[in-house]
Amino acid sequence: MTTDLPLPTVRLRPKGDARALRHGFPWVYADELVVDRRTRALDAGTIALLEDAERRPLGLVALNGQSKIIARMLDRDPAASIDAAWFEERIARALALRERLFDAPFYRLIHAEADGLPGVVIDRFGDAAVIQPNAAWAELRLAEIAAALKAVTGVSVLVKNGTGRARGLEGLPEETLLLEGALDGPVPVPMNGATYMADLMGGQKTGLFYDQRPNHAFAARLAGGGRVLDVFSHVGGFGLASLAAGAASALSVDGSAAALELAEAGAAAAGVADRFETRKGDAFAVMEALAEEGQTFDLVVCDPPAFAPSRQALDAGLRAYERVARLAAPLVAPGGYLGLCSCSHAADLSKFRNASARGIGRGGRRAQLLHTGFAGPDHPMLPQLAESGYLKALFFRLVP
Amino acid sequence: MTTDLPLPTVRLRPKGDARALRHGFPWVYADELVVDRRTRALDAGTIALLEDAERRPLGLVALNGQSKIIARMLDRDPAASIDAAWFEERIARALALRERLFDAPFYRLIHAEADGLPGVVIDRFGDAAVIQPNAAWAELRLAEIAAALKAVTGVSVLVKNGTGRARGLEGLPEETLLLEGALDGPVPVPMNGATYMADLMGGQKTGLFYDQRPNHAFAARLAGGGRVLDVFSHVGGFGLASLAAGAASALSVDGSAAALELAEAGAAAAGVADRFETRKGDAFAVMEALAEEGQTFDLVVCDPPAFAPSRQALDAGLRAYERVARLAAPLVAPGGYLGLCSCSHAADLSKFRNASARGIGRGGRRAQLLHTGFAGPDHPMLPQLAESGYLKALFFRLVP
Repeated sequence: MTTDLPLPTVRLRPKGDARALRHGFPWVYADELVVDRRTRALDAGTIALLEDAERRPLGLVALNGQSKIIARMLDRDPAASIDAAWFEERIARALALRERLFDAPFYRLIHAEADGLPGVVIDRFGDAAVIQPNAAWAELRLAEIAAALKAVTGVSVLVKNGTGRARGLEGLPEETLLLEGALDGPVPVPMNGATYMADLMGGQKTGLFYDQRPNHAFAARLAGGGRVLDVFSHVGGFGLASLAAGAASALSVDGSAAALELAEAGAAAAGVADRFETRKGDAFAVMEALAEEGQTFDLVVCDPPAFAPSRQALDAGLRAYERVARLAAPLVAPGGYLGLCSCSHAADLSKFRNASARGIGRGGRRAQLLHTGFAGPDHPMLPQLAESGYLKALFFRLVP
Repeated sequence: MTTDLPLPTVRLRPKGDARALRHGFPWVYADELVVDRRTRALDAGTIALLEDAERRPLGLVALNGQSKIIARMLDRDPAASIDAAWFEERIARALALRERLFDAPFYRLIHAEADGLPGVVIDRFGDAAVIQPNAAWAELRLAEIAAALKAVTGVSVLVKNGTGRARGLEGLPEETLLLEGALDGPVPVPMNGATYMADLMGGQKTGLFYDQRPNHAFAARLAGGGRVLDVFSHVGGFGLASLAAGAASALSVDGSAAALELAEAGAAAAGVADRFETRKGDAFAVMEALAEEGQTFDLVVCDPPAFAPSRQALDAGLRAYERVARLAAPLVAPGGYLGLCSCSHAADLSKFRNASARGIGRGGRRAQLLHTGFAGPDHPMLPQLAESGYLKALFFRLVP
C-alpha cells in the first residue's frame, strides 16, 4: 500500500550535517532544518521527505517541531512506504535477533532508533507486550504498530505505557492503558533462573528492567553461596538472580512497598522465599543503619535511579554515586564483592568509574575492578549514538 | 621471616604525586623520584622504602632505574616483609577469586598490579602454570614466586615465559624455559564447552588467550547453527567455541601454521573436526579472496594482533582496524553478525568503535552495535589504571 498524496518536503540548511545522516546518524536537530511557514504548519508526527541543502533526497523522516530533534530518519529510501508491511518488516528483523539470543519470549523487542523505529520501545513478556511510543510519529501510528506487532509475534495482550521523560520532550502526555486483551495481575518473567513479577500496568517504566539481565547473571556468579544485599532493588533484580544461583540469603532494599511486594512474590514463585528478606526505606538511610548494626555481606549491589539524568545534574549526580559507593563499601565483607550501577546518560563510564572508586576509597576500602557491563544485547545501539550508552555496571572485589 | 638488613630508602620529589600513591596508584615515574648517586647504585629489582617529599613513609616499592616506571608499589605497609608468606598470601587471595568464578582450574591466576604482584602474570593450565616475570624485581625473585605458587595451588609443572614487550621496557632478556616438571606436548584446555590446545613452551604469549573467554561465549550465542569465519584465529578461539555451541561450520584463518595445527587438534579433541576448516595465510589477503569467491558467513569475528601498541602507532593502527572492518563486513550474510576485537592499549574504546563503524560503512553495510565486551574477570584492573583496559570486543549485527 502506498500513500496517494505526495509527502511534504523539508530541507536541511547548509549547516545541516547531511554527511552524518548519509552515514547513518538518525536525527536532525532543530537548527539544522529550514523552518518556514509551510514547515511550521505540519503537525507533529508528520512524515516528510528530507532533502539536503542542494535538494538531493536523504530519506523519509518523522517531524516534530516541538522537539529539539526536529526530524528522525525513518527510511533512507525516499520511495519507501511507511505502511503495514514496513512496520512488520522492522519488527520481524528485530524479532530474529531476540530469537537468536534468548530461549524464551521475554526481552526488549524494539529498542528505538537502533531497531529502525525511532522513539519506539517495545518490551515483550511472553504473550503480552508493552509499547512505549515516545515520539510523536509513533503516538499517531500506535494502532498500526500494534497491528504489526500482533501479526509478527502473535502476542495477544497489548499495553501502552506513556510515562517517562522522553515523551515530555516530544510534547506528549502521560498515559498508560490496556490496548487489547486482559491482564490478570503481574506477569511472571523467567530470567537467569529466577522468576520476576512484572506489573505491566502499574510498574516503573514497563514493569521490569530487561537491560540488567547480563549484569544480574554476572552478580549471581560472584554471589556464590554467600549473603547478598540488593540496594535500590526494584522487583528484586540482583537478589533473586543470586538466590537462583545458590546464594545463602538476599536482602532487597527499596523505597517502594509495591516493588518489594512484587519481589516477594517472585521469590515465592521461584521457591526461594525462605532465603529472601526485604527492607523498605530510603536506600541511604538503610545502608547507614545496616552499618550501625554491624552487618556485612559477601556481595552488595546498588542500582540506583538516574542521579544524573541531564548535563545540568551531572555534578550533583556524581556526588550521589560517590555517596552510594562510600556507604556500600563498608557493608562488604573482607574479600567480598561490590556492584555499582548507573543508568545516567550524562555520567559517562570514566566519570562514573572515578566517582565509584573515590567513594570506595572514602569508605575505607581498596578495590580491584573485575568487570564492566552494559545493557544486554536486546538493547542494541546505533554505533553513531554509542557514546550515550546509558547503563553501566561495575563489579569490584574489595581486598581485605 | 623478616630481612635483617634495613631496606634502602628512596624519596619522592616535591612534584611526585604522593596523593595518587596514597589513593592506590601503583607506579612512580622516573621524573617523580629523587635520583642521586646512592639511588643510582641500587640494582634493578631492589626493594626499598618509599617516602614522600616530607619523608613520610608511603610503602615498599620495587625499583628499576632502567624503566620509565622507576618504582612499583609492593605494599603500602612500610613494615611488611616481602617473604614467602607475603607471596603466598597474594597468590591465595587471587586464587579465591578464580575459584569463585570458574569450575575448572584454567584461568589467569595473577594479573599483575591488580592482583598485588606488579609486573607478574601467571596463567594456570590445570596442573601447570606459566609465569611471566615482566618486572625486574620479579625476575630476581622468580624462585620465591614459583615456590609460593606451588605451595598455594599445588601445580607441579612450571614454565617461565620471558617474551613480550613489557620485559624489554624493564631491560630484561627474552627467555622461555621449563622450570619444573615435564610437559608432554600441548595441554588441552576446556573453555566454553570447547577444547583448546595450549603449547606452553612454544606459543604466543602463554600459549592461550584466556582474556577473550566471555567474548568467545557471546560470539557462540550469535553463531547459532550458522557458518562462522574466525580471522586471526590463533588456536581457534572463536571458531571452536561456536562449534561447541552448535555452529554448522567454522573456518579459522591465521598466518601461523603452528597455531592452526593446534586449532585442528582442539577440534579433534572436542569431536567437531568434521565441521572445522582452516586456511593459512595473510588475513587481509584471505578476506579478499573469500569475497572474490562470493563466500558469506553468518558470523565473522576478527581478532587481530595489536595494531596500535603505542601512541606513536595509533593513527596507522586505527587505519588497520578500519581496513579489517571494511574487508570483513562484505563477508557477513544479510542479517548476520560481525565481531571486531582490539587488544591495543592506545586505541581506546571510542576510537576503536569509530574506526570499526567507519570500516563497516565503507564496506557497504550498516550496523547495530549489540555488545561491547572486555577481558574476562580473571583479568582484574586497578580502578586507577582502568582507562588502559586493553581488550575491546565489539559485536554488531549487519542489517540486510
